Amino acid sequence: MRADDTAAPPVFTDAERESFQRLVEARRDMRHFTPGARVEEAVLQRLLSAAHHAPSVGLMQPWRYVRVVEPALRARMAAMVERERALTASALSARADEFMRLKVEGVRESAELLVAALAPDDGTVFGRRTMPRDMALCSLACSIQNLWLAARADNLGMGWVSMFEPRELADLLGMPAGAEPVGILCLGPVDRFYDAPMLEIEGWRQGRSVSAMVFTDRWDESAAPE
Amino acid sequence: MRADDTAAPPVFTDAERESFQRLVEARRDMRHFTPGARVEEAVLQRLLSAAHHAPSVGLMQPWRYVRVVEPALRARMAAMVERERALTASALSARADEFMRLKVEGVRESAELLVAALAPDDGTVFGRRTMPRDMALCSLACSIQNLWLAARADNLGMGWVSMFEPRELADLLGMPAGAEPVGILCLGPVDRFYDAPMLEIEGWRQGRSVSAMVFTDRWDESAAPE
Repeated sequence: MRADDTAAPPVFTDAERESFQRLVEARRDMRHFTPGARVEEAVLQRLLSAAHHAPSVGLMQPWRYVRVVEPALRARMAAMVERERALTASALSARADEFMRLKVEGVRESAELLVAALAPDDGTVFGRRTMPRDMALCSLACSIQNLWLAARADNLGMGWVSMFEPRELADLLGMPAGAEPVGILCLGPVDRFYDAPMLEIEGWRQGRSVSAMVFTDRWDESAAPE
Repeated sequence: MRADDTAAPPVFTDAERESFQRLVEARRDMRHFTPGARVEEAVLQRLLSAAHHAPSVGLMQPWRYVRVVEPALRARMAAMVERERALTASALSARADEFMRLKVEGVRESAELLVAALAPDDGTVFGRRTMPRDMALCSLACSIQNLWLAARADNLGMGWVSMFEPRELADLLGMPAGAEPVGILCLGPVDRFYDAPMLEIEGWRQGRSVSAMVFTDRWDESAAPE
């Protein structure tokens, strides 16, 4: 134990808890960013530190972040996303036109661009004998959620773009076999945060209530997705 | 837009941002819980609300939580985890004894027990044409991370137990085809939070520094996992 050489773990107050609730409710998947803005280096490092304080199965820390600074690389990624956007529109058939009118990403405009990726499997057995890839992927997603909330706490917007062909992006960034990109994270100042999820504001889809998501002792079929 | 019927999105202060950083750093994967303690119903609902405010691809909200209240059900889950613990020890061979001395879960003692599961696929195409299952799973993990941080903000501990056979747990809880449990979440009051990840305190494994996780423009092979 290291109880003697560290301060006691913090106790959070009602005010801090309420602030966290506001933070969770104010976090948005942003697609509009302030043009020409930037994120200070110290702020970016703080956000990455929050990402790195995520839980991980067996302490494997399988998250990796590629910070994209080269403009040509960003342009290629934007083109990649644009191609996938067109393919998504085709797959949506009946709602294709409606989809194409939505702004679905801010890859070209955001101050910072990060690619979040799963590291090649390091063989960790602890806690992942039965679900090895899933548990690593969940650890990565927890890290991204920490980053997202940390950005919002810094009054910065973030958007998780998943419209790309993972193998193509992995090749572009020189990822080794077994590494898998799961998100292009657009990060930076925004003019204003959406009051509600953008897909709700635009009438694309409405969220359901929490009561439909929670069952007692057994799955409740009547609460299954529409 | 609904700008007129809602308050302006909150701006977070330096103090609130610092509080969030402390929260992220103080969150632990807990395996020790205060025996006989309970979580107030209103608190549990608040935590589930935080879980439900997670981001999700295409607003699909694929998270489901089964709250286990029946003692016999909890006992069967504990036995299931105990069997998987033995199988994990076998798989670890050289470190089996060391592993068996670790306390790896608090399924029997935690005040509340929740099973987090992926809902059957609802066919959402938006943002998941190329990585459909992964994006749903990542959304679920973001929801669990919100719950985890919300619990810590309420000075409650949480542990994510992944030592079980998912099909077996799905059957026990009557999950439909396509639903997949990813975690048994032990939640409740704790006597004290660990000062550092328990696996570090116990000398099982040490975490790496954030600098090893972040690359610029291209993957850096030299920073790959040991």
